[in-house]
Amino acid sequence: MNPTWTKYHIPPQTGLGFTLLQGQLLRVIDPEGEQVADLVAFALGDSTEWLSNGRTFNYNETLYMTQGHVLYSNKSRPMFTILEDSVGRHDFLYTPCSLETFRIRYGVQGYHPNCLDNLTQALAPYGIEQHRIPTPFNVFMNVEVLEGGRLKILPPLSRPGDSILLRAEIDLAVGVSACSAGMANNYRCTAIGLEIAPAVVE
Amino acid sequence: MNPTWTKYHIPPQTGLGFTLLQGQLLRVIDPEGEQVADLVAFALGDSTEWLSNGRTFNYNETLYMTQGHVLYSNKSRPMFTILEDSVGRHDFLYTPCSLETFRIRYGVQGYHPNCLDNLTQALAPYGIEQHRIPTPFNVFMNVEVLEGGRLKILPPLSRPGDSILLRAEIDLAVGVSACSAGMANNYRCTAIGLEIAPAVVE
Repeated sequence: MNPTWTKYHIPPQTGLGFTLLQGQLLRVIDPEGEQVADLVAFALGDSTEWLSNGRTFNYNETLYMTQGHVLYSNKSRPMFTILEDSVGRHDFLYTPCSLETFRIRYGVQGYHPNCLDNLTQALAPYGIEQHRIPTPFNVFMNVEVLEGGRLKILPPLSRPGDSILLRAEIDLAVGVSACSAGMANNYRCTAIGLEIAPAVVE
Repeated sequence: MNPTWTKYHIPPQTGLGFTLLQGQLLRVIDPEGEQVADLVAFALGDSTEWLSNGRTFNYNETLYMTQGHVLYSNKSRPMFTILEDSVGRHDFLYTPCSLETFRIRYGVQGYHPNCLDNLTQALAPYGIEQHRIPTPFNVFMNVEVLEGGRLKILPPLSRPGDSILLRAEIDLAVGVSACSAGMANNYRCTAIGLEIAPAVVE
């Protein structure tokens, strides 16, 4: 790791919010393998501009984003460019798991850690309310489209140390959650690592 | 048509906003065939609860919604149930076409009618701001997922008179746009018909 990079550790089933200025680099790392990281972003200081899977699908004409793809906001501005990707399979379809997800899909009663709450807490200092959280770019999440459009959540393809490198194209408030739903992470929720470089790397 | 139903006509490349109370039925009709209708909805009086493709994908485990499927809000409440569907192919991935879509995808300079503006105008009386417009349920839009997740917009499968019938599961503010992008409508933008029944049909 370049010594000018700052390293963060997101414990299992928790989230982190941070500022990323235009030109800064963000590496999302799966330290132990098969762990999903839900990533959302807003234009810094403007909760009305958010990372949009629909705009990104439209302009890239694919469901699966990888090296070279640009991720767009709802206002059609580039938010991130994917510079490197050692996995090549990430999801952009699924909303973050929430209390309702666990209740409706898995019959869980009572509280369960969930990415929607993690992202809400992570972004609260930026004035982002829960209802504004869009579908995340679900780094390392492996969703296959089967015959007739049927969707199947499979174990991530990421192995220990795999990562994806993003460049911020505008100033951003970013939230990342170490996904809390066993099913997406091959039934073992682990940590997520981040490394952030300044806008100009020496 | 049952005489208690009210009929609306949405001219080509325009939109319409209306209230739909719990239990009311909405039929969306393609009068001439191969025409897409972008449909968005909000909980009536609450712009923070909106029709969510991501929640709908999650709970139905498919990209393609048809008869029997429930469409959910971002807060995981059922908004619509699809009661009938004479086409069986609708899109829920693509954001509404916007000025930026025409500029970025098609190099159009200056103004072009677009679904984002149509929906914004249609929902303005309900206090819905443009940045809150989510990915619509794109009725009759035909998007195929090809090898490796590549997306391809194909002509709609709808023929003249085809329709889909939805039941409102909560009180809703609904916006519908007769899609303004030639590409989605086999290069001929035509009208959309609506029929709305009261909550109790006699």
